[in-house]
Amino acid sequence: MPDSGGLFGGIFARGAVDTGDTAWLQAMLDTEAALARALERAGLAAQGAGAAVTAAATAGNFDLGELGRQAALTGNPVPALVSALAGSLPPAAAAAVHQGATSQDIIDTAMMLLARDGADTVLGSLRAASGAAAALAAGHEETMMIGRTLLQQAVPVTFGLVAAGWMTGLDEARKALTAVRHERLAVQFGGAAGTLAPLGAAGPRVAALLAGELGLAEPVLPWHTSRLRITELAAALAGACAAAGKVARDVTLLAQTEIAEVREGAGPDRQGDDGAAADGPGTSPGPRRGGSSTMPHKQNPVAAIAVIGCARQAPGLLATLTASAEQEHQRAAGAWHAEWQPLARLLQLTGSAAAWCAELLAGLQVDAAAMRANLDAAGGLPLAEHVATVLAPRLGRLAAHDLVAMAAARSRRSGRPFRDELASAIAGSISGAAVGPDEIDAALDPAGYLGAADQFVRRALAAHRDTERALAGPR
Amino acid sequence: MPDSGGLFGGIFARGAVDTGDTAWLQAMLDTEAALARALERAGLAAQGAGAAVTAAATAGNFDLGELGRQAALTGNPVPALVSALAGSLPPAAAAAVHQGATSQDIIDTAMMLLARDGADTVLGSLRAASGAAAALAAGHEETMMIGRTLLQQAVPVTFGLVAAGWMTGLDEARKALTAVRHERLAVQFGGAAGTLAPLGAAGPRVAALLAGELGLAEPVLPWHTSRLRITELAAALAGACAAAGKVARDVTLLAQTEIAEVREGAGPDRQGDDGAAADGPGTSPGPRRGGSSTMPHKQNPVAAIAVIGCARQAPGLLATLTASAEQEHQRAAGAWHAEWQPLARLLQLTGSAAAWCAELLAGLQVDAAAMRANLDAAGGLPLAEHVATVLAPRLGRLAAHDLVAMAAARSRRSGRPFRDELASAIAGSISGAAVGPDEIDAALDPAGYLGAADQFVRRALAAHRDTERALAGPR
Amino acid sequence: MPDSGGLFGGIFARGAVDTGDTAWLQAMLDTEAALARALERAGLAAQGAGAAVTAAATAGNFDLGELGRQAALTGNPVPALVSALAGSLPPAAAAAVHQGATSQDIIDTAMMLLARDGADTVLGSLRAASGAAAALAAGHEETMMIGRTLLQQAVPVTFGLVAAGWMTGLDEARKALTAVRHERLAVQFGGAAGTLAPLGAAGPRVAALLAGELGLAEPVLPWHTSRLRITELAAALAGACAAAGKVARDVTLLAQTEIAEVREGAGPDRQGDDGAAADGPGTSPGPRRGGSSTMPHKQNPVAAIAVIGCARQAPGLLATLTASAEQEHQRAAGAWHAEWQPLARLLQLTGSAAAWCAELLAGLQVDAAAMRANLDAAGGLPLAEHVATVLAPRLGRLAAHDLVAMAAARSRRSGRPFRDELASAIAGSISGAAVGPDEIDAALDPAGYLGAADQFVRRALAAHRDTERALAGPR
Amino acid sequence: MPDSGGLFGGIFARGAVDTGDTAWLQAMLDTEAALARALERAGLAAQGAGAAVTAAATAGNFDLGELGRQAALTGNPVPALVSALAGSLPPAAAAAVHQGATSQDIIDTAMMLLARDGADTVLGSLRAASGAAAALAAGHEETMMIGRTLLQQAVPVTFGLVAAGWMTGLDEARKALTAVRHERLAVQFGGAAGTLAPLGAAGPRVAALLAGELGLAEPVLPWHTSRLRITELAAALAGACAAAGKVARDVTLLAQTEIAEVREGAGPDRQGDDGAAADGPGTSPGPRRGGSSTMPHKQNPVAAIAVIGCARQAPGLLATLTASAEQEHQRAAGAWHAEWQPLARLLQLTGSAAAWCAELLAGLQVDAAAMRANLDAAGGLPLAEHVATVLAPRLGRLAAHDLVAMAAARSRRSGRPFRDELASAIAGSISGAAVGPDEIDAALDPAGYLGAADQFVRRALAAHRDTERALAGPR
Repeated sequence: MPDSGGLFGGIFARGAVDTGDTAWLQAMLDTEAALARALERAGLAAQGAGAAVTAAATAGNFDLGELGRQAALTGNPVPALVSALAGSLPPAAAAAVHQGATSQDIIDTAMMLLARDGADTVLGSLRAASGAAAALAAGHEETMMIGRTLLQQAVPVTFGLVAAGWMTGLDEARKALTAVRHERLAVQFGGAAGTLAPLGAAGPRVAALLAGELGLAEPVLPWHTSRLRITELAAALAGACAAAGKVARDVTLLAQTEIAEVREGAGPDRQGDDGAAADGPGTSPGPRRGGSSTMPHKQNPVAAIAVIGCARQAPGLLATLTASAEQEHQRAAGAWHAEWQPLARLLQLTGSAAAWCAELLAGLQVDAAAMRANLDAAGGLPLAEHVATVLAPRLGRLAAHDLVAMAAARSRRSGRPFRDELASAIAGSISGAAVGPDEIDAALDPAGYLGAADQFVRRALAAHRDTERALAGPR
Repeated sequence: MPDSGGLFGGIFARGAVDTGDTAWLQAMLDTEAALARALERAGLAAQGAGAAVTAAATAGNFDLGELGRQAALTGNPVPALVSALAGSLPPAAAAAVHQGATSQDIIDTAMMLLARDGADTVLGSLRAASGAAAALAAGHEETMMIGRTLLQQAVPVTFGLVAAGWMTGLDEARKALTAVRHERLAVQFGGAAGTLAPLGAAGPRVAALLAGELGLAEPVLPWHTSRLRITELAAALAGACAAAGKVARDVTLLAQTEIAEVREGAGPDRQGDDGAAADGPGTSPGPRRGGSSTMPHKQNPVAAIAVIGCARQAPGLLATLTASAEQEHQRAAGAWHAEWQPLARLLQLTGSAAAWCAELLAGLQVDAAAMRANLDAAGGLPLAEHVATVLAPRLGRLAAHDLVAMAAARSRRSGRPFRDELASAIAGSISGAAVGPDEIDAALDPAGYLGAADQFVRRALAAHRDTERALAGPR
Repeated sequence: MPDSGGLFGGIFARGAVDTGDTAWLQAMLDTEAALARALERAGLAAQGAGAAVTAAATAGNFDLGELGRQAALTGNPVPALVSALAGSLPPAAAAAVHQGATSQDIIDTAMMLLARDGADTVLGSLRAASGAAAALAAGHEETMMIGRTLLQQAVPVTFGLVAAGWMTGLDEARKALTAVRHERLAVQFGGAAGTLAPLGAAGPRVAALLAGELGLAEPVLPWHTSRLRITELAAALAGACAAAGKVARDVTLLAQTEIAEVREGAGPDRQGDDGAAADGPGTSPGPRRGGSSTMPHKQNPVAAIAVIGCARQAPGLLATLTASAEQEHQRAAGAWHAEWQPLARLLQLTGSAAAWCAELLAGLQVDAAAMRANLDAAGGLPLAEHVATVLAPRLGRLAAHDLVAMAAARSRRSGRPFRDELASAIAGSISGAAVGPDEIDAALDPAGYLGAADQFVRRALAAHRDTERALAGPR
Repeated sequence: MPDSGGLFGGIFARGAVDTGDTAWLQAMLDTEAALARALERAGLAAQGAGAAVTAAATAGNFDLGELGRQAALTGNPVPALVSALAGSLPPAAAAAVHQGATSQDIIDTAMMLLARDGADTVLGSLRAASGAAAALAAGHEETMMIGRTLLQQAVPVTFGLVAAGWMTGLDEARKALTAVRHERLAVQFGGAAGTLAPLGAAGPRVAALLAGELGLAEPVLPWHTSRLRITELAAALAGACAAAGKVARDVTLLAQTEIAEVREGAGPDRQGDDGAAADGPGTSPGPRRGGSSTMPHKQNPVAAIAVIGCARQAPGLLATLTASAEQEHQRAAGAWHAEWQPLARLLQLTGSAAAWCAELLAGLQVDAAAMRANLDAAGGLPLAEHVATVLAPRLGRLAAHDLVAMAAARSRRSGRPFRDELASAIAGSISGAAVGPDEIDAALDPAGYLGAADQFVRRALAAHRDTERALAGPR
């Protein structure tokens, strides 16, 4: 199973989401222990059995490799775990182990515990990311830049609006994941085929107690082969990856050498490239943030790249988990098994993407001057739409559009300023008096063509504050 | 684009979800018309312009093929459509066409309109399916059958519990899709780069009026490259497919010739196989429901197969749509375009899966006698767990489990009844007086080992009624 | 089913790959007709039956919608088609219709026919694309540009090398698809369960004749539920999309307004923007290539965007088709059905991606001056690696790397030329005499740091010619 | 990164495919060492440098966790590894470390080394699986069973034919994977942007030497952003999963309690259930193969379930890897990173699926008597097609089909034997003398309706022998 650390953990497991083998094992043990306590509270296990099982249920007490080997016998590690756990206990406590449960109850509930902790961690990172985006939105409400559509310069926007878009996307992901985390992460407890038969009529009561012990929801029915809880969780995680991925994609593009409107901060890991370089040649203790193994001048947007590297793995895992929801009868022959590692991986990758995204946004260095320079370098072309709008009442919308398009094309061919081509074209079409040079100049001022950018930023920030309140509240 | 009818439409487009080209075109026209009305209401278009545009905005007035050809010039069909629409109107009305909008505003909003109508249709089918499952659950609360795990006979359950599981899954899908439909399907209106610059400060007001005209939500911000609305919709649709797919998978398995516990009804299309056959040889006007092109005896579970055939396409489409959420800057160069057909297809396939599922459940023929016969034919083996539970207090849980496993294995090898092997094994292990034959016989009675099946069915039905009330309420 | 035309066909069905309903129907009819001829040749059908069935087997003779409706009865359109086809024939010919076959034989073989024609079309477009890339590689062997890694300027390359990479990828895709097309597209003919029982011992002979009639391979066994032919075809198509997608992604990036090293040609559809504009305002008959519905100055890279829009849909479809390969027993209950539309769609999208890519490359306008200007504007930083290489023998590799990194960082902070910072840093580290200014200037000349770019281009072109010969040969 | 062992390794990492962190690290070190040797051979590194680097390049010498942490600085672990490796060597050898290379060269080549070893392991397991299937096909050429289509009984087949189908699918997967393994696994060596600039004109020579050192192909060009090698490898692995998955799906279905035509053997891990049970209650040391944590009678088809559990994860990973092929410029910002773990995981899962499949087939217990009993229990219905074929010349094909369908339907309703219903129907339709009872009985004998099953099995076995020869030969 994926471990939190390891050779690639710095990239793909940056968040504190732990879905490594030990975390899995502990979650299974926590489930068995909670079940023993629930059975005791229901009067179905000896007094003290719950405490005894709980005391024994520590991952360190078990041989993970041996459990893994025995898992091959039964198709999952629970029978061996139950055997080892019960074997380590006196009979009265041993009798409380796994009573009423089937292997799937333990694995599914453990998966929910990993999901609960993982989702909380992801939500923390997303909140930090969204907060950082909000600060950027508020701080750059008036920072003009060129908007880009289809990777071409389009019309002016503000960086505040861009950041508000990132923030809104992150907040949407938070809301969706919060809903799943609180409403859909439920205990699994149904016994062999969902009737809890070994517990007779007491089954539902034990299930309720178990849910309480673990802080998970109690489902209406055991959900052994009704897997929408898993698919909804996976979708919410993939949504979080998508929201972070949008930010990261924009950052990689805005950080291109030729555009250079933003760059990543140094990050928490090191003092950053300048600091490292200041040590002077020969004393560098190893790689610097954003550095290359070979190109000394590189400043790679590592955080954004890592977000994309994580987020791009999500759709495939989501597809696997969604396809796995077609499960047979009372327990699936393979489709269930196919969920374990993809879900664990998706939790971990989402944790990493969210953590990188939060760090990226918190440290983002915005170069407002570069934004302005890029905007000005376009020589008014991004205001072509504005000019067409100004001319439309006089020429009709389509004719105005075509006149401006022609002037733009001529400017590109001739190198003559767009403004001058415009003036010529207008002079040739309408009475010169009708559209004066001042009017053209005004139309070519980006500050006059920001539309509702400021309104949008302000209402997005207000919605963000609402989200903060809503998600901060007690559940 | 996928059409609702066609050679395979009977299978993959059974629901009334229409995402064919004409529906797309009309949705785009509806958006342009609503925009013209909104502009007029905002005082930005001439009086009567809204009505004039609305009157002209009928798909039949346009040459769909020509629009498609021109779409190749600009990468989407909107510029050609705007040109044709405006060209068909007097200047004052023409001036109201597309004002402030960008192509993506029209396509995205049209997509939302298709989604709104499609989701409503899907929800109707899911409600019918869930209702039929509820009737099965209520009607078969005491119908015993063998539960099956990993495709092996496990312990007894009731068919009522199985049906309640189907119903609960369908209801979960309904809740998720309803939430998306009402909260996340929003108008798109941002202009070239999300500022609505051509409308100056009036943009947000027009956006609000447009949302009202179309019955869609008004977003906080234009969401040109913030695509969680799409991914959430796709996930909810895929969830609906998954819930239907679970039902269908079970039905194909329960309908296997060797199991024959359920079979599909004749369906609405024809009188069914018996009717067809009654016409006598030679007069058959064509295929009968569930028939084969070559095997006269076949009764294929066509509805279940169709559900699976539709549902299996959902995870890949969901992956495409989720991967497409990483969109650049203010409009994506390709990722946006990659959404159109997959979303339309997913809507249609979900509509078909849901419609087939509703029909399947409404007509499902349940053979309670066959269920009982299959249960009895197992010779008590499915009660092995029960016997072990009964013996556990006397032998310890693991030893009881092993004794019973040994007796089961011996019975399989020898052909001697499990009951007798059990008696021998018990006699060899514990004082014969301790566990009498009556006690064994009682333990082997499936009716005594249904646990909480009845409680679960009842509370699932109660939750279903709650869902009905919640989803029926005004929004 | 997807049609070649329609509202979005200009974008997603640009190639001549036809997988619309009529094409499907005709392919099924072609299969039935070929079977009748094969049966006649095998002496199992009346003389003339083959010709009679062939004459009747024209899509236009059948009511596609009615077949689609009846498909709902049996889960596929073949029984209704067989009934209609036989019904239109005299008894002797009717007896030859569908003899020995099952519905899946007809659908699968039809799918192979669509795949054969589709693959040939795709291969034609890929060949054109690869040829155009070869011309770019040969023509720009010495056109220097900045290489970019992680979207940051890295070290110099040549545009010839970039184009050679595109060409090589396209050629790899061609080889893979050619192999599948010739070796793996096979007739399906096994009857109800793969034994061809109705034909007795003559089955294999009829299968061989059928394969010959259709120009498809004859498989060792019927492959009703052995679907690697489908998954391999899908993978080869997705590979073609990936190769085209790589080209398109680079073009969108190189065409960014701020980089402007390439732009798309006007394309075959229209005279292009200049021509359109030349018509003067008011006379424009509709959208121009690369135009926007609202921004008059836009020149969007439509072909590249369309390639990406198509190619991004491939991985999800490939996943669906690969997941569908797990098929039950002798005919799958749903997994088979789930293949039809995704495969048809993947063929069509690949055809469109390949056609767009060929057009894109054939018309690509390369601005060598802009490439050079962008390279020069970097002020020598992309040569940092080179300088480090030159210094390494004197300082050690790591120390040289760090010295250069420090100089680069200082230059970025101070604005002072990198060259001067380098000189200072070197002077402070090593004896000035050791590395003279001329040596630094030489190290900063991009022409001196192209490594094996020219060798690589030449051997890639040689390999391309080999591929041309290999793929042109008889098969 | 995925480790071979761990809590779930018994299920998902059963084969000997090792893609754990240590294997990754060693593969990177092997690449650096081979590069040093190649540089030395090319005269670009000091004599003895290759041996010195090779001696130091042992994973155990490095702190994997620290490398992982430093990976976060640069987005991959290579810079830190190079620093540590060079730091452990004397200057002359250190100078040979990583010379000319970029991080991607090391990671991609290491990935190819993992793929080479993994593919060889997978191919070994697939060969064993195919061989076992061949033995089943040869041994059961005459073992009759009912064929099943759409999960319904269809017409008779032989188990030999079923096994031949499995074998053929496995052999197809072997051929595809063998081709990729030998033709497409290539060294990556291009330096920062694919020119090998630091090595001047010597780059290609070093690349060739490196390929020779590692036993990998030498590519025409560096393939940093031309990723069809990866997608083709992934597709071949997913194809292997699909072939194994087909076997496993059939086994789970044939092993259903109600069908019981096959069951899994005890497997190598333990003596099996009987053995375990023979130890007597209370002494069992843990789980038995195929056992349940709670149901003593269960005999789950663990191997088949594990195959499915592995194989179902492949399509999503394939989608991720295929989507990742759209890589920017000379090195991708995230798409490349998104490949590492999915490819490693896919290799491991394929290794596990293949290993389980080989074991499953080698130990499969086929119950020919059960097959015959299930066939006979169908009361002749699966021969309905045969009867229709026999009647067709007298009634016409459609009328014969309908008459038989009517008799089948009546038999199902009435419970009266199909044979008798047939006789009545025939008597009512055609002159009784025309079709005698003997003829009906003959038509109802499954042995007379196996068509070309035997021919197919024999030619599949011949093709299998050809494959063996072809794949065994030298490459």
